[in-house]
Amino acid sequence: MALPQRVKIIEVGPRDGLQNERHNIPISVRIALIEQLADAGLPVVEAGAFVSPLWVPQMSASGEVLSGIQRKAGVSYPVLVPNLRGLEAARAAGAEEIAVFGAASERFSQKNINCSIDQSLTRFATVVTAARQQGIRARGYVSCVLGCPYEGEVAPQTVVRVAAELYAMGCYEISLGDTIGVGTPLKALRMLEAVAREVPLACLAAHFHDTYGQALANLFAVLQLGLTNIDSAVAGLGGCPYAPGASGNVATEDVVYLLNGLGIATGVDLERLAATGRWICQRLGRRPGSKVARALAGRRNPPDCD
Amino acid sequence: MALPQRVKIIEVGPRDGLQNERHNIPISVRIALIEQLADAGLPVVEAGAFVSPLWVPQMSASGEVLSGIQRKAGVSYPVLVPNLRGLEAARAAGAEEIAVFGAASERFSQKNINCSIDQSLTRFATVVTAARQQGIRARGYVSCVLGCPYEGEVAPQTVVRVAAELYAMGCYEISLGDTIGVGTPLKALRMLEAVAREVPLACLAAHFHDTYGQALANLFAVLQLGLTNIDSAVAGLGGCPYAPGASGNVATEDVVYLLNGLGIATGVDLERLAATGRWICQRLGRRPGSKVARALAGRRNPPDCD
Repeated sequence: MALPQRVKIIEVGPRDGLQNERHNIPISVRIALIEQLADAGLPVVEAGAFVSPLWVPQMSASGEVLSGIQRKAGVSYPVLVPNLRGLEAARAAGAEEIAVFGAASERFSQKNINCSIDQSLTRFATVVTAARQQGIRARGYVSCVLGCPYEGEVAPQTVVRVAAELYAMGCYEISLGDTIGVGTPLKALRMLEAVAREVPLACLAAHFHDTYGQALANLFAVLQLGLTNIDSAVAGLGGCPYAPGASGNVATEDVVYLLNGLGIATGVDLERLAATGRWICQRLGRRPGSKVARALAGRRNPPDCD
Repeated sequence: MALPQRVKIIEVGPRDGLQNERHNIPISVRIALIEQLADAGLPVVEAGAFVSPLWVPQMSASGEVLSGIQRKAGVSYPVLVPNLRGLEAARAAGAEEIAVFGAASERFSQKNINCSIDQSLTRFATVVTAARQQGIRARGYVSCVLGCPYEGEVAPQTVVRVAAELYAMGCYEISLGDTIGVGTPLKALRMLEAVAREVPLACLAAHFHDTYGQALANLFAVLQLGLTNIDSAVAGLGGCPYAPGASGNVATEDVVYLLNGLGIATGVDLERLAATGRWICQRLGRRPGSKVARALAGRRNPPDCD
């Protein structure tokens, strides 16, 4: 096993999490969530998305969120941008890092961003080039790396091609998303092995949803390959529009518990993180999607064990 | 990786699951649950426990349950027995397999079965010997193999000793229980490696609770060692008295989904299993603790994906 000594956790709750929640969250709450997550030790906290508020109303006013947060030294606050217009708005709000989001499935690409994979890559190249010219780092997402809600199985070679193009155009890190959470460990491992032949492993991140409860097992599989970057969302925020009632992103608390148990450093304070998860879930009127959070809450209020 | 080609799933929902539920389940429902699980392809379905109804009221009338089920050829229906009196009651109800339950923690042993580990092993030896003389197979449980609610860390050597003694006294299979679900993959792997030096791996089972969401990751770890026996409970039935709100046994649906994805045969029909899980959860007035069950339910009633 080539388990890494340290893993960087990319906290996506304030973006990938909240954008899939039904509530419209006040800007002040979005800002407080981001700040609390950074205070809990997360080195990267995705802060918003500069996309059409018609498509993703939960992410409207991301400019006010991004410019409103008290930034912490050493912490990155990436925001999603789909095009040059989004990049301009992000830059105006002080973004130092952006992310573009492609897919490894043609039909998902059409449904999600209204263009083919090739068209999206051409557009992203323009955005990433412009961003880098302005000193803004770019991250790339690939959706549906282990399955597509429309096409079913996705060929690892499509994932490899999209990831390699994003890397070649200047994305410093490529996040490989099991968007609908259908993957299992060997599939995750084989997919990552294939991508890592074209893109350095150190520049790849696992972005697994826990829809079928497999996310931590899949993460343990890819950690054995030496992967060092993991996306997750506090309290497992987010959902999956294709499976109502199903859970969303793997919960950051559960990932940190796993990594702590494996002796892998993250710099994250689990208790503070769990407190943040409880707080945001109270605001959203939902229970935490993190089993660690629920178990820790139980331990804080233990029953009479006799 | 030494992944096995086939895994035997030991369904513990009707016992370990229901005994931790608050409801008192009608005998007819317990019988129907056991029969449905066998019909879904589970080769072993734990049917009850012959313990004091004062301690575990949910398991009272296990004799009526065991004698009431329509048995299926090739399926085992083990029942828990703590002593010779329990064995006699189980035999009278037609038990062909029993299980004794010890612990790898002194304080847990005292709290759970009111005696020391050594005292319990002496008693179990009498029970197992008597059972085998009557042609009844015996299985052995070891609780707290990855942590104890009272003692914290548990030394693998204690687990090894208890497992080896249960095996030596004639238990054909030893189930290693992470009773409070605190384990992580490397700890699970090291514990199993230690036990497998004294007891053949083919005679060991993993019995992991999902309290901290780690159960599938832990199972993926021990599967890599070649483990072929897994305990689980449909719909993740059961809870953990030490962590209110926390989940109980790892859900059989999630285990089957994992194993299907790894190409490991189980003989279990996932759709039928999930239907059984939905049915019993309706009876219990709770939502399934299986993410696979919830995701499949969502797919059966898909929203408009446009």
